[in-house]
Amino acid sequence: MKAKVHITLKTGVLDPQGKAIAHALGSLGFGGVDEVRQGKYIELDLAETDPAKAKAAVDDMCKKLLANTVIENYTVEVVG
Amino acid sequence: MKAKVHITLKTGVLDPQGKAIAHALGSLGFGGVDEVRQGKYIELDLAETDPAKAKAAVDDMCKKLLANTVIENYTVEVVG
Repeated sequence: MKAKVHITLKTGVLDPQGKAIAHALGSLGFGGVDEVRQGKYIELDLAETDPAKAKAAVDDMCKKLLANTVIENYTVEVVG
Repeated sequence: MKAKVHITLKTGVLDPQGKAIAHALGSLGFGGVDEVRQGKYIELDLAETDPAKAKAAVDDMCKKLLANTVIENYTVEVVG
């Protein structure tokens, strides 16, 4: 079963990568871009077949390794 | 209006970041993780109010800056 994890910076945390993208888009002539925030997207293939257990396991992985919960939020979505 | 962009490596392209995550999860005692792929997730705030035009603009941004279309796939989703 597959898990999709989105990790984004919390509101208020400075995002220099996003700022750099917004600046680069402006330089390339793309107007009207107010704000850009960059996060991470992780796809995991799990041997677990029970959706609830898979979600709990990935939640645990996020807390222990994937996300820095001081400055980042994460969402876990389990599919198929 | 907001646009959500997912950028992932194409199938077959080596993903050392994903491999490192899978290895680290194994070391932490998380078994049953078959494969991990890491991608990017970008949120853009756009001044454009027409969904079709916004999508076309972000598609263009992906081709010109955000994604390396030789090795990466991207998806654009326009919301609210």
